[in-house]
Amino acid sequence: MNKRIIISIIGKIILTEVILMIPALLISLAYQDGDALGFIFTMIPAAIVGAFFTRVRQSEKRMSSRDGYFIVAAAWIVISLIGAAPLYLSDGFDSYWNALFEIVSGFTTTGASILSAPENLGHGVLFWRSFTHWIGGMGVLVFVMMVMPMENDNSMHLVRAEVPGPTAGKLVPRMRTTSMILYGIYAFMTLILVVLLHIFGMKTFDSFCIAFGTAGTGGFAVSSAGIAGYNSLAIEITLGIFMILFGVNFSVYHLIMLRKFKEAFTMEEVKVFFMVVAASTVAIACNIIHYAGGFLHGLRQAFFQVASIITTTGFATVDFEMWPEFSKHLLVLLMIIGACAGSTGGGMKVSRVLILVKSSIAEIRQIINPKEIVTVRLNGKPVDKKTLSSTRIYAASYMILLCVFTLIVSLDGFDFTTNFTAVISCFNNIGPGLHLVGPMANFSIYSDWAQVVLSIAMLTGRLEIFPMFLLFARSAHDR
Amino acid sequence: MNKRIIISIIGKIILTEVILMIPALLISLAYQDGDALGFIFTMIPAAIVGAFFTRVRQSEKRMSSRDGYFIVAAAWIVISLIGAAPLYLSDGFDSYWNALFEIVSGFTTTGASILSAPENLGHGVLFWRSFTHWIGGMGVLVFVMMVMPMENDNSMHLVRAEVPGPTAGKLVPRMRTTSMILYGIYAFMTLILVVLLHIFGMKTFDSFCIAFGTAGTGGFAVSSAGIAGYNSLAIEITLGIFMILFGVNFSVYHLIMLRKFKEAFTMEEVKVFFMVVAASTVAIACNIIHYAGGFLHGLRQAFFQVASIITTTGFATVDFEMWPEFSKHLLVLLMIIGACAGSTGGGMKVSRVLILVKSSIAEIRQIINPKEIVTVRLNGKPVDKKTLSSTRIYAASYMILLCVFTLIVSLDGFDFTTNFTAVISCFNNIGPGLHLVGPMANFSIYSDWAQVVLSIAMLTGRLEIFPMFLLFARSAHDR
Repeated sequence: MNKRIIISIIGKIILTEVILMIPALLISLAYQDGDALGFIFTMIPAAIVGAFFTRVRQSEKRMSSRDGYFIVAAAWIVISLIGAAPLYLSDGFDSYWNALFEIVSGFTTTGASILSAPENLGHGVLFWRSFTHWIGGMGVLVFVMMVMPMENDNSMHLVRAEVPGPTAGKLVPRMRTTSMILYGIYAFMTLILVVLLHIFGMKTFDSFCIAFGTAGTGGFAVSSAGIAGYNSLAIEITLGIFMILFGVNFSVYHLIMLRKFKEAFTMEEVKVFFMVVAASTVAIACNIIHYAGGFLHGLRQAFFQVASIITTTGFATVDFEMWPEFSKHLLVLLMIIGACAGSTGGGMKVSRVLILVKSSIAEIRQIINPKEIVTVRLNGKPVDKKTLSSTRIYAASYMILLCVFTLIVSLDGFDFTTNFTAVISCFNNIGPGLHLVGPMANFSIYSDWAQVVLSIAMLTGRLEIFPMFLLFARSAHDR
Repeated sequence: MNKRIIISIIGKIILTEVILMIPALLISLAYQDGDALGFIFTMIPAAIVGAFFTRVRQSEKRMSSRDGYFIVAAAWIVISLIGAAPLYLSDGFDSYWNALFEIVSGFTTTGASILSAPENLGHGVLFWRSFTHWIGGMGVLVFVMMVMPMENDNSMHLVRAEVPGPTAGKLVPRMRTTSMILYGIYAFMTLILVVLLHIFGMKTFDSFCIAFGTAGTGGFAVSSAGIAGYNSLAIEITLGIFMILFGVNFSVYHLIMLRKFKEAFTMEEVKVFFMVVAASTVAIACNIIHYAGGFLHGLRQAFFQVASIITTTGFATVDFEMWPEFSKHLLVLLMIIGACAGSTGGGMKVSRVLILVKSSIAEIRQIINPKEIVTVRLNGKPVDKKTLSSTRIYAASYMILLCVFTLIVSLDGFDFTTNFTAVISCFNNIGPGLHLVGPMANFSIYSDWAQVVLSIAMLTGRLEIFPMFLLFARSAHDR
């Protein structure tokens, strides 16, 4: 490993985080919420350490893909450890581990909270908490590379390790420009959402925070009432649509920008994603017809909740814990499926699920026609063997980790539904689960150490079980 | 497809089932329980249809592996449909679907029951119910081939489709003799168990039924009190040990017979199986120390329940639904792992789990040493690519089916823990689940159609998702 370059890049990341804390600090000062000192006491030592790290001399400028994985994992841990400090210093959290859980939940865009009343926090801390969603959604390292240029080869290693999905596809942001385009789309869409939310009656501060939570598919609200508290159909529909938009593979927007409309609107993953959303919405609307008091009311509730869960955002306008069991089971399934690859959403990703389902169907076809050469196709093109193999290993590792995390967390003594959905929710970066961690509950029931375990689950899920990345990197490298 | 040979073999299977019903008929007559007519009214029409089918002229004697899969699937459905008739005619079941669920649970060695008090059934029906465990444990088609010889090539197709596990290994019973040896071992071990149970105070009838349930890793008891009703430490320990023995890869016994002791005692799958049993027993014993009233009592309870669950038998001496959550979660994990390949037990199989875990670890090693060629080894030998690939597809299909079955069954409105563990329990051929389908409860809560869905889950699980077989068949064929 090239230790010097690792330290130097981690230094750059720390400096970037300090810069990203400035808006929150300014808001804290403007609202005089008393948390400004907490930010300053975090930023100054971090800046010193960061500057010190950045100065490490590098005799060898190149890094291996292994270094890339290491840096991404280390970076996410370091920014979480530092990012939790202002929260802990704000007195809103009982322990540092609580604050760490909250900020990991922020950066990983999970949105699971241990706070029963976020409105008790100061505005600066609330802003920082939501802003981490926005940073984490698109990727921390990608952001750093945009701000601070580095060698092209090195940035490739980092981007591959951080951008989610089974294949990087055509849109792997190989260069600084590509990641700038992606961040540009991301920022532009966020800005439109902020304006719309403001027009529909949200306060400026709230509209920024909620837009960050939507864009990163995070899900932190700024009050205990959540989105339901705004009591506005326009806001609900706007957020529902934007959650879906941020759950779509960003390639689509890039292709639209390049005026490749045909290619943009025929992406199989996106089509299936929309179909799943539509089918689930209708199925749930029918199932909750009595609970919601009519089909249209059911449709409204179902659409928002389905959009929120499948994109792994985690906002809620109703307590779906009260829904009939079928709807709740369907939501758990949507939690696992998740959003499109190359979006800000989490979960298994639609394309991976597609590959897995198609692989299984291919086997059945192989039985019917043993002599036919059956291939798995995505977007009309055959999926190469390495992607197939890595997707299957991903699914297997996913299962194994789900079992292990659930078993460990069960030591806290809660029931199976609570633990299993809490782990699924954290691992897929969603937010709410079922039963004791339902949409109107929070994660404060878990002990400190279980919160640390769930934080690890969130990071593992966000970085896609991390070792898995290498496979995609290798298959991309061989081309 | 060679339709004529399919019909002819199904005919043979029906005739075999009629013959296998004779002991139950005799018992029914001997005990004068009034169910003899039910058996006769099933056996006579079945024998006529069977004989008629067997007579179909075959111009072409050979079948394809596709025919093999088709026959195995069809055979299991046919024997279930016929086998349910005596149960339905005995008046112990409300509907034919209830009886079908019960007999599918029997043949697939699941042991999930919809009866709250099996002792209300007549002795003949009770015997038949338990005897199906014994038949299903080793395989229906394997039995048929032993009784009625057929072409070697054809029997290979059938055996491959019915014998569980990721690789058939050296012990694929390619010929009639091999399957006779396996059935010989099976019958011999069952007989020893019958004698031991009788010595330890069980009635002759009970000792046969319970031995069938143990040997097939089924789990049907003959009274509502189950194994706890015998109130005997000797019986409990004997059953615990024999459940484990029947959960071991039968290759071990064959190797011992051939005096290849070194090979027998170094099988990695079996070693890991024993390690998992030991570790889980100790972990649960510590966890339930207060519930059980001391470590030794805990150890006794834990050993029996762990042995029963991991081998997918499903007997219970305590209501583990009352155990602390960690122990219950661990049991769910053991349910998924299951027994060894090539045993009578169900589940994912230890060797598959081993391959999956090792594949994931191999990826991590690959990151650390990108230039090293990392191979997955089992029993010290590299696992070939086709087995790796088929194991991963199996795991993916397993996940998909688990989700689909749980979602469908949720329409009955029970909670997630109940539905999820009910599906896991049926799919892995175990018997009890958690919460409403816990060890002291039964599956009668589910509606008729949900019982049919769970019956399909049991068959799909027993035949290892069925299309999956082809892969193993192909890899064996290529050697």
